[in-house]
Amino acid sequence: MRDTYVLSGARLATMEAEGSYGLVEDGAIAIQGDEILWCGARGALPDTYAACPSTDLNGRLVTPAFIDCHTHIVFGGDRAGEFEMRLEGATYEEVAKAGGGIVSTVTATRAASLDALVTGALPRLDALIAEGVSTVEVKSGYGLDRETELNMLRAARRLAEHRDVTVKTTFLGAHAVPAEYAGRADAYLDEVCLPTLRAAHAEGLVDAVDGFCEGIAFSAAQIAKVFDVAAELGLPVKLHAEQLSHQGGTKLAAERGALSVDHVEYATEADARAMAASGSVAVLLPGAFYTIRETQVPPVAEFRMHGVPMALATDCNPGSSPLTSLLLTLNMGCTLFRLTPEEALAGVTRNAARALGMQDRGRIAPGLRADLAVWDVSRPAELAYRIGFNPLYARVMGGKMEVRT
Amino acid sequence: MRDTYVLSGARLATMEAEGSYGLVEDGAIAIQGDEILWCGARGALPDTYAACPSTDLNGRLVTPAFIDCHTHIVFGGDRAGEFEMRLEGATYEEVAKAGGGIVSTVTATRAASLDALVTGALPRLDALIAEGVSTVEVKSGYGLDRETELNMLRAARRLAEHRDVTVKTTFLGAHAVPAEYAGRADAYLDEVCLPTLRAAHAEGLVDAVDGFCEGIAFSAAQIAKVFDVAAELGLPVKLHAEQLSHQGGTKLAAERGALSVDHVEYATEADARAMAASGSVAVLLPGAFYTIRETQVPPVAEFRMHGVPMALATDCNPGSSPLTSLLLTLNMGCTLFRLTPEEALAGVTRNAARALGMQDRGRIAPGLRADLAVWDVSRPAELAYRIGFNPLYARVMGGKMEVRT
Ligand SMILES: [Zn+2]
Ligand SMILES: [Zn+2]
Repeated sequence: MRDTYVLSGARLATMEAEGSYGLVEDGAIAIQGDEILWCGARGALPDTYAACPSTDLNGRLVTPAFIDCHTHIVFGGDRAGEFEMRLEGATYEEVAKAGGGIVSTVTATRAASLDALVTGALPRLDALIAEGVSTVEVKSGYGLDRETELNMLRAARRLAEHRDVTVKTTFLGAHAVPAEYAGRADAYLDEVCLPTLRAAHAEGLVDAVDGFCEGIAFSAAQIAKVFDVAAELGLPVKLHAEQLSHQGGTKLAAERGALSVDHVEYATEADARAMAASGSVAVLLPGAFYTIRETQVPPVAEFRMHGVPMALATDCNPGSSPLTSLLLTLNMGCTLFRLTPEEALAGVTRNAARALGMQDRGRIAPGLRADLAVWDVSRPAELAYRIGFNPLYARVMGGKMEVRT
Repeated sequence: MRDTYVLSGARLATMEAEGSYGLVEDGAIAIQGDEILWCGARGALPDTYAACPSTDLNGRLVTPAFIDCHTHIVFGGDRAGEFEMRLEGATYEEVAKAGGGIVSTVTATRAASLDALVTGALPRLDALIAEGVSTVEVKSGYGLDRETELNMLRAARRLAEHRDVTVKTTFLGAHAVPAEYAGRADAYLDEVCLPTLRAAHAEGLVDAVDGFCEGIAFSAAQIAKVFDVAAELGLPVKLHAEQLSHQGGTKLAAERGALSVDHVEYATEADARAMAASGSVAVLLPGAFYTIRETQVPPVAEFRMHGVPMALATDCNPGSSPLTSLLLTLNMGCTLFRLTPEEALAGVTRNAARALGMQDRGRIAPGLRADLAVWDVSRPAELAYRIGFNPLYARVMGGKMEVRT
């Protein structure tokens, strides 16, 4: 068959079945263009593919390419100075006085040009890609004014022009109340956030709408106003909820059929039930849990009991999770949240795709995109077991295989 | 001057002074062969070096090359299966019955050829080198019989033939009591461990002698017997002590003038005082702390108060710390143990050299080895702040600069 090739001699973690990674021993995958035509045991490869060029992977492991479904990789500046001040004993007040906290990122992001935002994000994106990532979600939310929010989303879209990666954009205007609206969150929403959402949507910049429902950010009632506009525009929603305290964001998000509810350390069993009913994915973010030294672990047992799909993501951001490794995120998901290695792997493939509303990736199956990662390991658990080690052999992106140098 | 070149236009973290990273702005380093001849502000570069070839580092940060002063990177097998079993809910007994725990590593290490031990360790070594490591300590301790302990040390020595790196070997025959000596620790020491130490020393394989002083391993009195032989052979000692409980190993090690006492989560203020008196380095191992989910943090305040130098290392091993990133270790040292970024950096440079008894490296100063790391960051705190990101631009090993590709 024209333009078709076969990868063979690999152990396939198809993620098509639970409890076994959907493992296929001595497997083969037939790929045409950017699509998987066939996959299964090598011995069962249909004759149609017998004459196609074939690459033997010598027993390596193939998984779906990784998907980082929750990031803030577009921003200006960094917060290393603040990290150091705090470790040297500065109080939060002293850090704030020195211009630290999210305000410093908002200031630096507003000051950055579109080009500077793209250039700054590329090394972070490259670190993700080097570990087999094919799809990255990128949020706005450090502009908090019309032009900068739009610029962040434009920068996110541009990343996909610079690198062979799929970018999904999320509008997060309701991330924080900017200093100029301090104490006037509703006015910020009405005057800036919601008009900017409409403008961003009109410019084709928004794939989903997010918010931060927390005591220090927005109430569930305020988030509901944002979700109303999203519904009117036909955009799916997701939410940062129950990260530092229980505020009821999960219930709201589930009622609105959210793609995902993210963080959820303080979610309850009732929340888990609501998420199961709405089909929302729980996106767990162990990098933030680790960095802020949280002790409340998300209710993993309740998610399992009620069948809530769990994803894992880096939450890469300059303050609470300056993390650019999904492999390390797998290990943290296991070590800190006690996920099994299979749950962790599903969390950056099958369930991460679902958290982004994407049906065409995240598993190895006929008809799906040929986005794959080839690893120099023999068993999938090794991906979560090692810490700070990258065994990627090759990435297959839209059918094109690039061997790592 | 013949064979001399200059690195210039860099911010230098010389680690020559505490409280400021020994920072030199717009610095220059003159290198001849494998030695630093001069370093300081570019404007003060002596005329002697004016005609030497010069490389402008464009404002990048230069630190001493990293030193991983506590690793077990030579071993057979891996423990990913056990990692997975535990997360799937298996008890320690079930894991042990399935052949898990240190026994599985001993079995796999005994079964491995010398070549296989070298080949298995190289990817771990390469991961360290890729982050600017120039010097690695490697311990025996998974053989627990004469031939395998010798083979582990031979493999460690061979690593330095395969890669441009300095390897320091440590004999750790007193790591665990092997199954065939269960309940007869003293007999193991007398019949296997101590004769093997003598044989390894006779073969030139031992740079230092270590032990594991713990309820599940050897008592302080048993370790004392090992240290007696080390003293007789003129070998420096170090000790795994107070990791899981307080057993008095630190006191013993300090009395014997140990180069370092490692782990030390359960060390007391009296231990800190004893270490200060003996000049022993406290080698902190946050990767193991993280992996076994320990909650007792080492007494950092006491180490500071009494002036005990602190080092950081990966403790890379297949069971309690499958960690191959010193950059991540810096972050963990700060996040989990509340070290400052400067303490963390000193822990993988100046104090790591001291933990290995090496005076010729770990700082940037005239007369020292030209082992340097050049980073694509502007401030040293960024090295500890990021998680899972490698900003290495180039490594200088014995004066030879290799730009990372
Ligand atoms: Zn987030
Ligand atoms: Zn150790």
